[in-house]
Amino acid sequence: MTTLQDCQHLDATDPLRPLRDLFAIPEGLIYLDGNSLGVQPKSAAACAARVVEQEWGQGLIRSWNSAGWFDLPERLGNRIAPLIGAGPDQVVATDSTSINLFKVLSAALTMAAHDSGMRRTVVSERSNFPTDLYIAQALCQERGFTLRLVEPEELPAALDDGLAVLMLTHVNYRTGAMHDMATLTAAARRAGALVVWDLAHSAGAVPVDLLGAGADFAVGCGYKYLNGGPGAPAFVWVHPQHAERFWQPLAGWWGHATPFAFTPDYQPAPGIKRYLCGTQPIVSLSLLGCGLGAFEAAQPLGGMAALRAKSLALTDLFIALVEARCQGFGLGLATPREHAQRGSQVCLTRAHAATDAQGSGGTPEPGANSGANSDTDSGAFAIVQALIARGVVGDFRAGDGGAHPDILRFGFTPLYTSFCDVWHAVEHLRQVLEGGEWMRPEFTRKSTVT
Amino acid sequence: MTTLQDCQHLDATDPLRPLRDLFAIPEGLIYLDGNSLGVQPKSAAACAARVVEQEWGQGLIRSWNSAGWFDLPERLGNRIAPLIGAGPDQVVATDSTSINLFKVLSAALTMAAHDSGMRRTVVSERSNFPTDLYIAQALCQERGFTLRLVEPEELPAALDDGLAVLMLTHVNYRTGAMHDMATLTAAARRAGALVVWDLAHSAGAVPVDLLGAGADFAVGCGYKYLNGGPGAPAFVWVHPQHAERFWQPLAGWWGHATPFAFTPDYQPAPGIKRYLCGTQPIVSLSLLGCGLGAFEAAQPLGGMAALRAKSLALTDLFIALVEARCQGFGLGLATPREHAQRGSQVCLTRAHAATDAQGSGGTPEPGANSGANSDTDSGAFAIVQALIARGVVGDFRAGDGGAHPDILRFGFTPLYTSFCDVWHAVEHLRQVLEGGEWMRPEFTRKSTVT
Repeated sequence: MTTLQDCQHLDATDPLRPLRDLFAIPEGLIYLDGNSLGVQPKSAAACAARVVEQEWGQGLIRSWNSAGWFDLPERLGNRIAPLIGAGPDQVVATDSTSINLFKVLSAALTMAAHDSGMRRTVVSERSNFPTDLYIAQALCQERGFTLRLVEPEELPAALDDGLAVLMLTHVNYRTGAMHDMATLTAAARRAGALVVWDLAHSAGAVPVDLLGAGADFAVGCGYKYLNGGPGAPAFVWVHPQHAERFWQPLAGWWGHATPFAFTPDYQPAPGIKRYLCGTQPIVSLSLLGCGLGAFEAAQPLGGMAALRAKSLALTDLFIALVEARCQGFGLGLATPREHAQRGSQVCLTRAHAATDAQGSGGTPEPGANSGANSDTDSGAFAIVQALIARGVVGDFRAGDGGAHPDILRFGFTPLYTSFCDVWHAVEHLRQVLEGGEWMRPEFTRKSTVT
Repeated sequence: MTTLQDCQHLDATDPLRPLRDLFAIPEGLIYLDGNSLGVQPKSAAACAARVVEQEWGQGLIRSWNSAGWFDLPERLGNRIAPLIGAGPDQVVATDSTSINLFKVLSAALTMAAHDSGMRRTVVSERSNFPTDLYIAQALCQERGFTLRLVEPEELPAALDDGLAVLMLTHVNYRTGAMHDMATLTAAARRAGALVVWDLAHSAGAVPVDLLGAGADFAVGCGYKYLNGGPGAPAFVWVHPQHAERFWQPLAGWWGHATPFAFTPDYQPAPGIKRYLCGTQPIVSLSLLGCGLGAFEAAQPLGGMAALRAKSLALTDLFIALVEARCQGFGLGLATPREHAQRGSQVCLTRAHAATDAQGSGGTPEPGANSGANSDTDSGAFAIVQALIARGVVGDFRAGDGGAHPDILRFGFTPLYTSFCDVWHAVEHLRQVLEGGEWMRPEFTRKSTVT
């Protein structure tokens, strides 16, 4: 079994180790929640000061040209492109993931209706991130399409001749299970459908090859593995063969062919720029560049391939240590063991125990959870709270009392997570479980949820 | 005629004068473009540092609760509400003006279709801000409504029994002309229609009373007169009698009734919160609070009424000084002289002169203009460029060669614009015109527009 000394050796010989120094990790914290909000790059403070004091404060409107605000969505998009297998001038950083999903799904439904009026079904995964399903629900209702939610194993059979769009999140937010993008995309395309991928939990976490897979549309998040800051603008990609066929209804001045001609009629800009809408939050958008800088620093050290290798080593180690050192406490593994099916997180379940304290609560954050308040509390919430109190930050995702159990979720960001982090996190977990520390009222108490 | 000494006296006795000290105005700059991008409040630098280094850097995901990120759109909305005549918990700060317009217009069309299938027309002004027209164009096409654009004087006749929604911008971006919100809203409501107001050029610039006028929906901008920073998130208001009747298709996690229950079905949050969609750019959103702080500081000094009085005094003075001191250079006034019809900006036109250099260019910025390249150049672009070179920042809006002439636009923000600023600005304008300085090639040259 791997020892702490082994982990120290792994860190000492880790070629990616210098990247950790690019981030301002709070003293004493083991942060395993970069899949919810990435850590602050050290360059962010100076960037914010520059944008606020120089670009805004001194440059004022002149900064639209002199500081390059006008091109910022494309420049950032071009820096995201290599992380997701997209080409130059195919990606823009803008708006939120939800808004961008609305844009691409809307374009996809327009294309589907135009190309084949017979295809009226949008298929997604029942445990897809709910916000994606809400957007799809509203759009399908508006356009007269049917949204069909299936389990992952039902996907192949759902790719039939009524399928207009297959809309999936590449890595599942609850379980960390990763779809085979190439195989599913090819199958859906063979069936005559369009494919939309949400890369929220994969961009910057696992290698993605959108063009190689032949995907049609993709969106993703700027503030998780890309470390762009809280609520950093998201990104959107459209395959160049579709980009100019149609446009999408969130048609604002920034996506106009001649935004400064002030014509009353909308004329879409060429290519991906027509997926821009209104004025973007320049300070938050600029900070996204700091997060992307870390990936550029990783490039000479092996880039995404090296990051993926380290990510798998970290998650393998976490699984092995939990199974070896936390036996007998009812923990189970919700994340696939097979590398090809695993993102960059590990999710544990916990069997219900009669001795568990009743009730649970939660820490609201995007993609976070208020905690289920079921009669058969798994204790997962309280265990996560006890770990946070010890400075080990993961998160809790409530189950539905049925097929989807409560989840203890731990994200591993190879840019800054160390092997010693993993070792210490599991040791804290062991102590929390062994001593019954998690059953203390301050951890089991249902917190006030805003 | 008012002298510089008079202006110095006006500044010395201006009860709002202390507010200027809240802003970091670049040394030597006379900034008359706060209607495009407001000046940086001095508190912004420390706010950005706190959010980046403390809330993001140290707090990480815990800041969703501990720093109040989750409630931020509502807390900022409640601070905007008094500026626009809205009640508590009726406004949220979120997304861009374009996106918010899509939300409210979508809700309005749903209501109109539900309440009376016979009303199929949306009326707006032909010279409304183009982005508003683009959003309306796409939505009307999608929903089977007709978008009808009219001139302001044709509005009363357009309020007929086919009218579903009247959608107007309160203060015109080109001319500074202000609609009579109360009268138009009442007339449209009497005609059985819903009324949507865009307050981009009025929130924080002129008193607005949405509830008093009986309006139905409103959106507005965070980065113009509210001084929220470049691309600061916008705001949205819905009359409480409508807020829970329907919801809008940009339905993301943040607008869900129980965002952390992770149910696959969308259930809208109560009230205005259902107009939230995805995760917001927290750094840019937080900075909006700095801009709003200046209005709170203005409250004991007389609030919006005092700001409006000063705004009118500033624009009256500018008009009087231009007419007295810049005679004979072909300048005309595009902004109404009548106070009730004037926003917080003054727009000048210029008669075409055969001696003018050919071609023009522009300074791209949101709501800005690349410059028309007409055969009959008004010289307006070059005059604005010459003023900018002298440190007097206004902006240029190209005409259409027809009913809408080229515009020299000057915004007056009573929070920080002084009477001496006005005097010096006109003196610079006089010198630029009198010496023919604006005809230098560096000002007339068509600049490269991105």
